[in-house]
Amino acid sequence: MRGPSRGARATLPTSARATCLQGEVRLSSTLAPGAAAPPLALLPLDRRSPVPVWRQLADALRHRVSAGELAAGSRLPSTRMLAHDLELSRNTVATAYEQLLADGWLEGRRGAGTFVAHRPPRNGSGNRAPAGDAPGLSARGATIAASVATWRPTRGAPRPFRPGVPAADLFPWPLWRSVCNGVLRSSKSELFAYGEPGGYPPLREAIAAYVETARGVRCTAGQVIVVEGAQQAIDFALRLLTDPGDLVAAEDPGYLGARAAMQAAGARIVPVGVDAGGLDVDQLAVVAEPVRLVYTSPSNQFPLGSTMPRGRREALLAWARDTGAWIVEDDYDSEFRFAALPIPSLHSLDTDARVVYVGTFSKVLFPALRLGYLVVPERLLAAVTAARFLAGIHAPFFHQVALAEFMAGGHLLRHIRRMRAAYARRQAALREAAAEHLAGLLQIEGAETGMKLTAWLPPGVDDVGAAQTAARAGVDVYPLSRYWLRKPSGARGGFLLGYAGYTPDELQAAAAALGAALRAAPLPSGGH
Amino acid sequence: MRGPSRGARATLPTSARATCLQGEVRLSSTLAPGAAAPPLALLPLDRRSPVPVWRQLADALRHRVSAGELAAGSRLPSTRMLAHDLELSRNTVATAYEQLLADGWLEGRRGAGTFVAHRPPRNGSGNRAPAGDAPGLSARGATIAASVATWRPTRGAPRPFRPGVPAADLFPWPLWRSVCNGVLRSSKSELFAYGEPGGYPPLREAIAAYVETARGVRCTAGQVIVVEGAQQAIDFALRLLTDPGDLVAAEDPGYLGARAAMQAAGARIVPVGVDAGGLDVDQLAVVAEPVRLVYTSPSNQFPLGSTMPRGRREALLAWARDTGAWIVEDDYDSEFRFAALPIPSLHSLDTDARVVYVGTFSKVLFPALRLGYLVVPERLLAAVTAARFLAGIHAPFFHQVALAEFMAGGHLLRHIRRMRAAYARRQAALREAAAEHLAGLLQIEGAETGMKLTAWLPPGVDDVGAAQTAARAGVDVYPLSRYWLRKPSGARGGFLLGYAGYTPDELQAAAAALGAALRAAPLPSGGH
Repeated sequence: MRGPSRGARATLPTSARATCLQGEVRLSSTLAPGAAAPPLALLPLDRRSPVPVWRQLADALRHRVSAGELAAGSRLPSTRMLAHDLELSRNTVATAYEQLLADGWLEGRRGAGTFVAHRPPRNGSGNRAPAGDAPGLSARGATIAASVATWRPTRGAPRPFRPGVPAADLFPWPLWRSVCNGVLRSSKSELFAYGEPGGYPPLREAIAAYVETARGVRCTAGQVIVVEGAQQAIDFALRLLTDPGDLVAAEDPGYLGARAAMQAAGARIVPVGVDAGGLDVDQLAVVAEPVRLVYTSPSNQFPLGSTMPRGRREALLAWARDTGAWIVEDDYDSEFRFAALPIPSLHSLDTDARVVYVGTFSKVLFPALRLGYLVVPERLLAAVTAARFLAGIHAPFFHQVALAEFMAGGHLLRHIRRMRAAYARRQAALREAAAEHLAGLLQIEGAETGMKLTAWLPPGVDDVGAAQTAARAGVDVYPLSRYWLRKPSGARGGFLLGYAGYTPDELQAAAAALGAALRAAPLPSGGH
Repeated sequence: MRGPSRGARATLPTSARATCLQGEVRLSSTLAPGAAAPPLALLPLDRRSPVPVWRQLADALRHRVSAGELAAGSRLPSTRMLAHDLELSRNTVATAYEQLLADGWLEGRRGAGTFVAHRPPRNGSGNRAPAGDAPGLSARGATIAASVATWRPTRGAPRPFRPGVPAADLFPWPLWRSVCNGVLRSSKSELFAYGEPGGYPPLREAIAAYVETARGVRCTAGQVIVVEGAQQAIDFALRLLTDPGDLVAAEDPGYLGARAAMQAAGARIVPVGVDAGGLDVDQLAVVAEPVRLVYTSPSNQFPLGSTMPRGRREALLAWARDTGAWIVEDDYDSEFRFAALPIPSLHSLDTDARVVYVGTFSKVLFPALRLGYLVVPERLLAAVTAARFLAGIHAPFFHQVALAEFMAGGHLLRHIRRMRAAYARRQAALREAAAEHLAGLLQIEGAETGMKLTAWLPPGVDDVGAAQTAARAGVDVYPLSRYWLRKPSGARGGFLLGYAGYTPDELQAAAAALGAALRAAPLPSGGH
């Protein structure tokens, strides 16, 4: 909560405003050609009004429905399309749609789009919820609902090349089962009643020892708070350390789950470019307003895979020191570094406790475990513990106890060593398969770490369209375009290719199918 | 988000203001006698200022520290004491303390209280966090941190008469272990990769069938969202359905976890009295401002144990329909009704989808499971799913799969039937023991349901002091005073006595120890 950033919002300098996408309106007001729904493309929106633009949009749409100008059952343009036509951020449109969906003015059919409700509320306003009207979401609720509009976490049985999935076939199931059976037979009271909100104490000890060994993070067990994966850790950090309207800097392209947490927290997101050294710290220095928090994945930038060199890490810490900003360090899969020495974590270089360190077991063990952790400065412990209480008192203890014993037996480090070698082999297998089947179609980037590769399409090819072509052939490739807030014109399209979770044979077959599909279809051109 | 409640805040009528405790200031400005810290009791606070009172208090304390008027290491009064002296709500003081703790101006030693930091930040303001200053919590973060100030969830090995703990000794461990072993041997992809955010589909089906059978709640499996206990469900409802400053009505006395969620959400809490019929609906009608949401536990009011009759349930639903309010129905242990027919849930009487139904497995199975659920109207599904994503994508699947198979085998209903009988026996055992050891000390209320009894102390006896006496004798009794926002002058003190988790012998021994302790010590008198 910082006076200046509050006070300065109205007079946000153009330089900074042009970089504030979430909930903000781009400056140009010329309308794009070929608007999907001409009347909607002409909706009057006052960018200078104190009324949020998403609210103006929701009100305008509501009035068109009650005036009968939008017929019941008629289909609305996609958030992407309407955002383009009205030159709004997609999130602004999604927020308006979510409010109207919640108020009953619109209906969504999963996958089929958004439609005008057949029986809209009889009363004129969903927001005011006068007598008899169905109550809707709060403004905060609509913001939370819209925050995941651009983020659809993967689910279901993985198939190549879906990223973020470790190797199920190489996981030591018999060992894991015997550890779990031992826990089931034990009669610890933590396995029945409530336990410590911060987590099972022996697990917190084990994590504190692990992060010091693996990542140079020095902390007490008391500074480790066990949560359900990195996503919850990032959500806690955003809600505890920022207020709605605060500026939050994020890597662009970057992790959509973190961006969703920023949008849900009501942050104004400042996209910061990424290069071979990760987050471009120089861009932070020129932001005219105080940046409250910066989110970064320095050890293996998501999605581009670059590693921030030590010099830039120190520059980032110096910038944070000078501006009083928080740093959230997402170290989601730094364990899988094949070559050279790992770069020390930001946390290990931090001299004045402004780095919140986020780790997860989703990559080194498996996602369904839903266990991750925060390492926070002492002065944040009360706040993080409170957030932990509110989110369900504590993470379930069964797997916390099992993991503590798994780690105590040295099995975690052994598993990581084995997976590091296995993932290096799988990456090599993917490279071979790509050389055989994808030459001339995809240019694959080097990666010294992790579970995925980035692959670039020929200039001018639309990666979203190409990914749809691949999906029809049974291959999951994630278009890099979805990770941008502000895709530079002329930036090449590409794919994220996950390999860790798939055998060399599966990778070989998927590469062949992908090559065939991309060669068969005319590659869609142009940005999207 | 409702214009009227926004606009009306400044001109909040006295009738309503007098009932708005959280973050509000009582009207009287005379100082209480016997202030613990005279200088602090004289802090100037402008109740009419747009600056929140907690911020004024934090600034005033910070200036005293930097001016050296508060010596490094000196102890501050408790939030309860300072709130009393300044006639603020305790939460307002706690919020100020949390901000200063986070900014490094104060230091807390668990249990030992709050002290002026030995090395306070060199710069004048923790809020503005100028160059070089340590960044602090946001205002939202300070509110979240303070929200649990009056709530300390129970943890550790349970002992009589701690409430909320089911019977570990009667739990069918061999059966549960064999179900879990079967899950461990299965190779469902949900046990490794990411799954459905709303929960394991067969579990959602099983819950939908269960709530219809057990509670008359009619819903599709798609309306069931699996969360980590009732606490997370209530937190989701508060954040999605209210905005900071909205009026939220809560039973008084009531469940502290729900109150913490209200405070964390920035709600202004309207305490509503409770009688033999539960929440007093008539009191809602006289609140001058629109109430956005009401939280209630109609089947077994916490902590008093009353059941809301059908007529009042229909009046509550009619009130909500007329005012456009949401109802959160916390049905945390309605399964354990010994006598008569269960009263239909509010949800089953709701004709226009304004009830959010909250259930948990913490009582019918065990708390460490951390599994509960929300049943929400279709139009809230996108928002609740988004909140679920942000809080860790989905609840861990291992126990969801195990529970689905446990329920499919009919084991849950069988276990509930067995526990209902066992808890009736344990309640009878406690009554016998109380008649033998606590006659004249505690007057025990009848209870037809649940896992705990309320017991009243003689008029004028301070239950907080009496509970401390009991704790020194090794007996946990929860003073009813903790559950009040506005304890009526002359309201009797009393205890919550949990019995479900303890054998008749344990209950007998604890009653004897409690009786001896209370007879030995002079009973502390007076309200506190």
